[in-house]
Amino acid sequence: MTTQTGKQSITFEKPPWIISSGCVAGTKEAEGPIGHEIDLVGEDDNFGCDIWEEAESTLQKEALTIALGKAGLKAEELRYLFAGDLLGQSMATSFGLQQFDLPLFGLYGACSTAGESLALAAMTVSAGYANLAGAVTSSHFASAEKQFRFPLEYANQRPLCTTWTVTGAGAFVLGRDRYKTENRCKSGLEKEECTKTQGVQQKECKGEACCDVCITGITPGKIVDYGVRDSMNMGAAMAPAAAACIAAHLEDFSRSPSYYDKIITGDLGAVGREILIELLQQKNIDIGSCHTDCGLEIFDNERQGTGSGGSGCGCAAVTMSAHFLPMMRRGELKRVLFVPTGALLSKISFNEGENVPGIAHAVVLEVLENR
Amino acid sequence: MTTQTGKQSITFEKPPWIISSGCVAGTKEAEGPIGHEIDLVGEDDNFGCDIWEEAESTLQKEALTIALGKAGLKAEELRYLFAGDLLGQSMATSFGLQQFDLPLFGLYGACSTAGESLALAAMTVSAGYANLAGAVTSSHFASAEKQFRFPLEYANQRPLCTTWTVTGAGAFVLGRDRYKTENRCKSGLEKEECTKTQGVQQKECKGEACCDVCITGITPGKIVDYGVRDSMNMGAAMAPAAAACIAAHLEDFSRSPSYYDKIITGDLGAVGREILIELLQQKNIDIGSCHTDCGLEIFDNERQGTGSGGSGCGCAAVTMSAHFLPMMRRGELKRVLFVPTGALLSKISFNEGENVPGIAHAVVLEVLENR
Repeated sequence: MTTQTGKQSITFEKPPWIISSGCVAGTKEAEGPIGHEIDLVGEDDNFGCDIWEEAESTLQKEALTIALGKAGLKAEELRYLFAGDLLGQSMATSFGLQQFDLPLFGLYGACSTAGESLALAAMTVSAGYANLAGAVTSSHFASAEKQFRFPLEYANQRPLCTTWTVTGAGAFVLGRDRYKTENRCKSGLEKEECTKTQGVQQKECKGEACCDVCITGITPGKIVDYGVRDSMNMGAAMAPAAAACIAAHLEDFSRSPSYYDKIITGDLGAVGREILIELLQQKNIDIGSCHTDCGLEIFDNERQGTGSGGSGCGCAAVTMSAHFLPMMRRGELKRVLFVPTGALLSKISFNEGENVPGIAHAVVLEVLENR
Repeated sequence: MTTQTGKQSITFEKPPWIISSGCVAGTKEAEGPIGHEIDLVGEDDNFGCDIWEEAESTLQKEALTIALGKAGLKAEELRYLFAGDLLGQSMATSFGLQQFDLPLFGLYGACSTAGESLALAAMTVSAGYANLAGAVTSSHFASAEKQFRFPLEYANQRPLCTTWTVTGAGAFVLGRDRYKTENRCKSGLEKEECTKTQGVQQKECKGEACCDVCITGITPGKIVDYGVRDSMNMGAAMAPAAAACIAAHLEDFSRSPSYYDKIITGDLGAVGREILIELLQQKNIDIGSCHTDCGLEIFDNERQGTGSGGSGCGCAAVTMSAHFLPMMRRGELKRVLFVPTGALLSKISFNEGENVPGIAHAVVLEVLENR
């Protein structure tokens, strides 16, 4: 009995459910096209803190709290957390998730961590190592600019190909069982009511709103380096890794892009999307019609001056939690390939003349109604 | 059927084998008590590179190459890599493991990453997601000083409680099956010879040297913050997390410390060891007689001027690979609790006045002869 699929993928025999999710974002994200769907928006981007890194920690804390709240779970019901961010030594994660007092697997895959954390949490839950696990990622525009480029006070100019790091965090609760979905069953009843009026435990409720989104498979990605050396053009650095991961995924599962209603990359932006589509076309894979990118969904580049689009762990996590998961729950999307993308850039490696390699991890989200 | 054990641990129903390991270290480590056991030692600590971060990448590359070589495996036979280091954005890992062209799960748990990577690789192999997986971690004295404290050229003074970051990397290959152990069977025969003269496949060889070391369980740890704010005293910052993890482990498995021949922490050093033992004594747990610390094994503090002892991901990984695994293979140790410890410190968080919280992950290594 094996769940290994193709060269580098996994099919889950017992696909874990996405029990709930929560997201928090900043003021600029709130003004964007999906702003009204974000669970919590700060009054300003400090989120009540004095320093940017602390603000980012707060984002993680609030996102997980919201996800737990929607599921009607206490923190201690989660067995493990998988989490990361973009900062050196994963600072936002260390200080943001401490108070939950849970065993933590700290991750670093740049912005692809949004996919890496979901993949590892899904592996853990599906294998029975945990009944419930959390995946949390974040980014913050100001802490990222300070970490990777220049402090905001320097007011450096940004070329148009530059992406805009999203101030936001997303948290996902994965479970082996389907109960406690968003704390409210699909009939629109609160959990208590549902149990009372329908005489069933919520986990057995067949109301139309019961959560049906599962992670059915993953394709963990490799580091791909096309020699990009421009720290302002993350889309170009990540597109080759996204192309390699998507191509490997389709081959491993013997699927064509049309299997998916949407193939959603993390934060390639307009420039990276163009490169991705062209690279895949060279392999005779056409994803143009079903592809979108979280970085293009979260901001309106023309109106908001966000260059090529949104980026950061928070970009993929917030857009998935706020926008695409609800679409899946409403039945507007049935099969999604979610491919968060990361640029393996550090200030030191960049200043020492190294390239900016990319990495991407693919996660298959499917609405499974008859399990 | 569940493998969940106690509140936060996992027992592996099918314990993965440690098929092989490899380690590389610098000149100072070579002069230490276990120097003669290290697989490869550099002529100097540059390892043929111009910059420290590149040298650290080379350590990872060489360590994994050695581990693969000992097992007689090609890189492409590994399905996944789990790896990390101490540098911002896991620079050493990104640039060190790229050429293996393998799907990579990047990790960050400070020096505890040595345990985190083994834990996740073991979970992955035991669940059948991979037949073979690698766990790689590294640290480098010079890149770490530059990242966390001062450049070496500044020649800052070091208090005696300071630990000395090990220049080294360790790589472990975990497998579902026992074959290909160190490329040579326990009778001392090369694989080919063994098959020929004994008429058996190596995996069935009952010669005394067949690899018998398994990972039978893990206890992933929580972040613990006792308010330490001294970036020079990592032992004190990590000891509370190690104590919490060991106490949780013993409770989850209903074991006393005497179950283990050795409880081996990662890099607490002399100062951290003292705190660890006292903290556990307060919980009526006495590990004094069976405890040691990799940081105390790898250097002779008095002779080598290494303050409180060795530290870094490389400290735990190199000492396990070079010293303790061979002891297990020789039958001198049967049951080991390996607890790599990490200090969640970054230059930014420290300079902003944050504490230095700790984290530790426990991995149970056992010699299983009759599987």
